[in-house]
Amino acid sequence: MSEEDYDVVIVGAGLSGLSAAQFLLKRDAGLRIVVLEAKDRVGGRTLSQELPAANGKDSWDMGGQWVGSTQTHVMDLIEELGVEVYPQYTEGRKVHHMGGPRAKIRSYGSSLPSFSPLVLLDFIQFLWKIDRLCKKVSVDDPTSSPNAQHFDSMTLYSYIEQNVWTAELKEELGLCSRAVFGMEPTQMSFLYFLMYSSAAGGTLRLLETTPGSAQEYRVKGGTQQLSERLAKQVGRERVRLGAPVTAVRQTADTAEVKTANGTFTCKIVIVTCPPHLAAQIQYQPSLPAGRQHLTQNMPVGHMMKFIITYPTAFWREKGFSGEIVARPSKDCPFSVTFDATSPSGSPALVGFIAGVQATDWSSKMMEDRRNAVVSSLVRYLGPEASAFIHYEEKDWAKEEYSGGCPVNIMAPGMLMYYHQSLRKPCGRIHWAGTETATQWCGYLSGAIQSGQRAALEVLAELRPSALSEEELTAVRNAQKEPDAPDGGSGASCFPVGLTVTAALFCGAALLLARVHYGGARIGQTWPVLRGPL
Amino acid sequence: MSEEDYDVVIVGAGLSGLSAAQFLLKRDAGLRIVVLEAKDRVGGRTLSQELPAANGKDSWDMGGQWVGSTQTHVMDLIEELGVEVYPQYTEGRKVHHMGGPRAKIRSYGSSLPSFSPLVLLDFIQFLWKIDRLCKKVSVDDPTSSPNAQHFDSMTLYSYIEQNVWTAELKEELGLCSRAVFGMEPTQMSFLYFLMYSSAAGGTLRLLETTPGSAQEYRVKGGTQQLSERLAKQVGRERVRLGAPVTAVRQTADTAEVKTANGTFTCKIVIVTCPPHLAAQIQYQPSLPAGRQHLTQNMPVGHMMKFIITYPTAFWREKGFSGEIVARPSKDCPFSVTFDATSPSGSPALVGFIAGVQATDWSSKMMEDRRNAVVSSLVRYLGPEASAFIHYEEKDWAKEEYSGGCPVNIMAPGMLMYYHQSLRKPCGRIHWAGTETATQWCGYLSGAIQSGQRAALEVLAELRPSALSEEELTAVRNAQKEPDAPDGGSGASCFPVGLTVTAALFCGAALLLARVHYGGARIGQTWPVLRGPL
Repeated sequence: MSEEDYDVVIVGAGLSGLSAAQFLLKRDAGLRIVVLEAKDRVGGRTLSQELPAANGKDSWDMGGQWVGSTQTHVMDLIEELGVEVYPQYTEGRKVHHMGGPRAKIRSYGSSLPSFSPLVLLDFIQFLWKIDRLCKKVSVDDPTSSPNAQHFDSMTLYSYIEQNVWTAELKEELGLCSRAVFGMEPTQMSFLYFLMYSSAAGGTLRLLETTPGSAQEYRVKGGTQQLSERLAKQVGRERVRLGAPVTAVRQTADTAEVKTANGTFTCKIVIVTCPPHLAAQIQYQPSLPAGRQHLTQNMPVGHMMKFIITYPTAFWREKGFSGEIVARPSKDCPFSVTFDATSPSGSPALVGFIAGVQATDWSSKMMEDRRNAVVSSLVRYLGPEASAFIHYEEKDWAKEEYSGGCPVNIMAPGMLMYYHQSLRKPCGRIHWAGTETATQWCGYLSGAIQSGQRAALEVLAELRPSALSEEELTAVRNAQKEPDAPDGGSGASCFPVGLTVTAALFCGAALLLARVHYGGARIGQTWPVLRGPL
Repeated sequence: MSEEDYDVVIVGAGLSGLSAAQFLLKRDAGLRIVVLEAKDRVGGRTLSQELPAANGKDSWDMGGQWVGSTQTHVMDLIEELGVEVYPQYTEGRKVHHMGGPRAKIRSYGSSLPSFSPLVLLDFIQFLWKIDRLCKKVSVDDPTSSPNAQHFDSMTLYSYIEQNVWTAELKEELGLCSRAVFGMEPTQMSFLYFLMYSSAAGGTLRLLETTPGSAQEYRVKGGTQQLSERLAKQVGRERVRLGAPVTAVRQTADTAEVKTANGTFTCKIVIVTCPPHLAAQIQYQPSLPAGRQHLTQNMPVGHMMKFIITYPTAFWREKGFSGEIVARPSKDCPFSVTFDATSPSGSPALVGFIAGVQATDWSSKMMEDRRNAVVSSLVRYLGPEASAFIHYEEKDWAKEEYSGGCPVNIMAPGMLMYYHQSLRKPCGRIHWAGTETATQWCGYLSGAIQSGQRAALEVLAELRPSALSEEELTAVRNAQKEPDAPDGGSGASCFPVGLTVTAALFCGAALLLARVHYGGARIGQTWPVLRGPL
């Protein structure tokens, strides 16, 4: 058992931990830093994998794969690292199979949801309400929002039940919850949903492929290379793989971070792993009760992802975009698929098995899942779908040291009582990870933001001279009153709300007009909640 | 690092683990069994402690302290071990300080809640609704109950909001939730609440000190002695203290249970620790996704308990029972107190700081909490309360290898999707602990029932000849269809429902009569929801 001495030990070599390390070293290259990673690779919930493809072999993202232009932290990093992005392919007709057990399969050329006028109106009024609420939620301190206690006391499901009129929209919103969080609306605090939407700039941004939204771009060469390149910058010798942290012990002078193979003594620890994994570390002394409650009660979503490669992009040839939205059923494991053809032209589709469907299907044999996926694709896109080259899947719940994907959410009654523990340091321990972000929380960008924020906190303690006066003041203010009402940030981070609402009303008017006068193309596109033209 | 070989390794030497061990050895004394306990004592969430008292020293329960005559498993064990019980002291006036921030302190001679007629009617209609729902909930398989999906999708708070008319009753029900679960109504699945109530034979049983209820009797010499005597029966050499289990690895032939000091190889493991602690064990191979989700999402309550000893039971002399029900405030940490005078006559009060109040108060200095408790007691019982001998408290959230008390509950959306994983063995791992009980789940009695049930499962695998035909069939049926609708047990375990409802209506009628005609004594007593005469 070795013992080593550092300034900062960072737990987790995902985007958050490596961003923290990079930020610290940029400000002071003399800091003694080590990054401890439980897995045998860097990248956390991003993972690029080579698969058999039309051109022999090609690489695909088996974890997080999208970025968007409003995700400033990840876009800045992408630019800094000299990586390229390319737009998600969305041309052609989308398949939509929702609307109860007897729903017909429909396909649409473009843009608004495939709803009847009544369902569309329902969707508009619901989104209008949500938008208004989102604008009032402070991401920094959601507990200061109007009706915060009430909204945190109900599930997203309860809010939907009380505010949505049509069964079809309820089904559609269930699918959205699954696709975005890997969780059911029954499992999530409504206030948490509002906070999460607000951190992204609005609910629609979570769902769309349009400019600024979460599914706008993909990353050439995959998203894991961001972590790989960061690790190279930080220095491979500073990143220890296969080193799961089992305990953190704080004394008056130091913190000791224990792994199976050694103890790392340091001044400050940054824990970046997801809350349910942070909860598995033994802390001495015990963490404050609020922090314990929080980490024990932020369930992680269940998301399985598959990539299926083909000799040709037959769906494109047939006028399909590759996007399918399918209702939960015993025959079809996935909720959504998209085109995943590689930048070098290897045709592929990507699909997601999410939420309770993932839990149901994860216990079956891989062959059964694959066969069900393929026969569903045949049903939706045609017989060519059966002639695939390779089917690869990733069940993140089964990956040790992940246990789920894409994000940990909050159950009802947690935000109000324990939110102040989310980012508040516990002695020498600082907290990062995308779940602690205030911009694009839950996304790659949020991971980076949280790592940089934790690095600022650490520098304020260890190297205050490395920070500007503004940075120092910001860190100290944030730490001084972690639970004080903020009030401002929620309103300011949602500038598009009214525009979207206005656009929706216009869209609805046009659609209703179309019902009478025939199709007119509307510019806005909707990836999940997409509609007829 | 030693390696030892066993038939059965039991994780946890609380009532559940030791009951399992006792049951196994009763059926086959030749079984090679070891019980691994993380703490340096047996008893889990029961703990007896000697404190300075009027007669020098005396012993009090700092954890679970009550049993009731309908709790057959614990009552049988108490009889078998030759331990005595005595009734909770309830004579005299009760103090009730509820009803909004400007509520007056009131005290009552006995029995029905101190509600206005409107609030009482509200309470009756609410209880009538809950009773009807409870009767339809199967504890074995709550997912088969009518409207199960809907009730699991809402919090207890949402149900209360929709079905309670008066603010006063809402406040009162919040206090009940805190006192029973150590959790807020905002944090709990309503279906879970129904299941929990049903497992006790009805909601009122959770709240009362009346015959058959949860707070009926106390145990002479304390409840921890049940575990101590069981450990003696099982054999002290079979119980290893200070042995926290870090990992369980299953192979084709064996299971390996790892602690810091050794590995225990065995055929079967019974894990009895609370779900949030079971989730901290590393399992190889990983547990099924459903089981992982379940254990990661059963938050444990937060309960602090205090005992305050006095030279005389001055409250009795003044005509008080010692029972106080107090609304949450910045001045008063506790929700409820009771008389805790020992069987040998050492005067004392016991109080509970629970739910979010516990989280708030746990970060303060002990002296501040003690002073606030004492000044509240002075306010409610008179100046004599300041002349205490000793104040002792136990914050279960701070006890390593407990992390909370009294019980782990389920957040919304968990039961429907993951309940089938609650008792379903994972290969060689069987699950016990009071959270897995079907009778008095969450109580001492449930812990024993669950341990005996797990022992039956193990015997069915290792020593089927030690079981009767009925036992074998029961075990096999339970394991064959863990998620099949049951339908029957819910209805049968709630025989008192109609009687209680009828009694309530009579009580209301009498109370309403009293408003006009003056006081008449009603026999039924209500510990938390107690009323005027």
